[in-house]
Amino acid sequence: MKEIQNVVLIGSGNVATHMGLAFKEAGIEVLQVFSRTAKNARELAGILHSGFTDRIDSLNPDADLYLIALSDDAIEPAAEKFPFSGKLLAHTSGTTPMSVLKKGSTRIAVFYPLQTFSKHVKLDYKKIPICLEVLHEEDGKSMERLACRISSNVAWTDSPKREMLHLAAVFACNFVNHMYVAASDILRKNQLPFDLLHPLIEETARKAQVNAPVDIQTGPARRNNLKVIGKHLDRLRENPDYYHMYDFISNSIKKIHGHIR
Amino acid sequence: MKEIQNVVLIGSGNVATHMGLAFKEAGIEVLQVFSRTAKNARELAGILHSGFTDRIDSLNPDADLYLIALSDDAIEPAAEKFPFSGKLLAHTSGTTPMSVLKKGSTRIAVFYPLQTFSKHVKLDYKKIPICLEVLHEEDGKSMERLACRISSNVAWTDSPKREMLHLAAVFACNFVNHMYVAASDILRKNQLPFDLLHPLIEETARKAQVNAPVDIQTGPARRNNLKVIGKHLDRLRENPDYYHMYDFISNSIKKIHGHIR
Repeated sequence: MKEIQNVVLIGSGNVATHMGLAFKEAGIEVLQVFSRTAKNARELAGILHSGFTDRIDSLNPDADLYLIALSDDAIEPAAEKFPFSGKLLAHTSGTTPMSVLKKGSTRIAVFYPLQTFSKHVKLDYKKIPICLEVLHEEDGKSMERLACRISSNVAWTDSPKREMLHLAAVFACNFVNHMYVAASDILRKNQLPFDLLHPLIEETARKAQVNAPVDIQTGPARRNNLKVIGKHLDRLRENPDYYHMYDFISNSIKKIHGHIR
Repeated sequence: MKEIQNVVLIGSGNVATHMGLAFKEAGIEVLQVFSRTAKNARELAGILHSGFTDRIDSLNPDADLYLIALSDDAIEPAAEKFPFSGKLLAHTSGTTPMSVLKKGSTRIAVFYPLQTFSKHVKLDYKKIPICLEVLHEEDGKSMERLACRISSNVAWTDSPKREMLHLAAVFACNFVNHMYVAASDILRKNQLPFDLLHPLIEETARKAQVNAPVDIQTGPARRNNLKVIGKHLDRLRENPDYYHMYDFISNSIKKIHGHIR
């Protein structure tokens, strides 16, 4: 097995930035950052002390891995322009099948970090699950070794399973955050500070990590308390979206706990 | 101001248990636990080293505060039977107006701990917001002093505001947990461990405490990525509840971020 010692990053957004920092922390050299926007490439290269380019035909040919960290729709077009057909080429997307990289190289892989990234928020990379996939078994060991240097949580998932994992993550992260948005809206309209909910938010997240979420469900819908549910719906009449979400999610909870069919 | 030195707990469920433990930790004596079910009263009294009774007419007459920690529907009936009309009587409910206690005493109050309680889960009571309300200003100081001995987070909210706070908490806790339920269901059906989502759940909750949730929304709906949304909906066709939640919440996110009206 040839160990992956250095990487070229294709992309300069949130995921590219955090993966670049994670590689650096783990002692893996970032040789070069590519972005179509020279300014963005230069900026991230400055942080990572790497080279940079805005021309795909000027990619450094000596890297052990080329990692595409672009938005889903930009991955296939970037792979099509990738100039080194025998080099290891991977993407970082949850929903995009590995196969879209086939036009770029014969050696392809996926390196999917399962986390929500914001550019300026520091993260403990050791805790971020890295989900791997490779086309050729020969590349499996070096990809796994690379992932293990960054994270203590490495898993193998094929493209269909990774898609379901990403779908579950949409519920557990994006939709959860939308519930926080609704809660903070309701509080703001009543001149109450969102801080009041912080301990509850923290405890709710903590509990779900040590129990099956279905076993620790609480609240008016779990108890089938129709009086409270009715009062709450009344208060939400001005906001049809929140009204409908309250109604629908409550009914879904009631079904799971056998209060309605 | 007469300091509240001791308490009688009316109720023996999750909230009564945790409030009893919180009082004990803060050096406030629990004189007695009342429950209509003698076994439950005895059990909690054993934990709190207090007296107990299953007869409301045998309530200890010497407490500084009588705290009703019962389900919403049971509060008013309990207040009606309360035998000491001049004694300080409070409940712990988010949705129940203070006024339902009027039939029990002339001195009434609310002591609402804003947290999700499970009987066997230890909590740091100092962090739990306590929301207070009193009918007579004279009882305000002693209630506030009591709350401050338990928690470093004490707020005053009248009954209508407390109801809105409880409604927001349903979104931030109960509905968030239902999103975890959906995520864990999706993973289980695909033989993937829920653990993979733990770091994401934690980071999502953490981020919302240091940013306005609307500013940190991520995901396919935030980016208006219709291709990914379409694929995800396709995968959910077998479960109409999750399909509809995905569709509706995604549209709600899109509206907030200006992708649709």
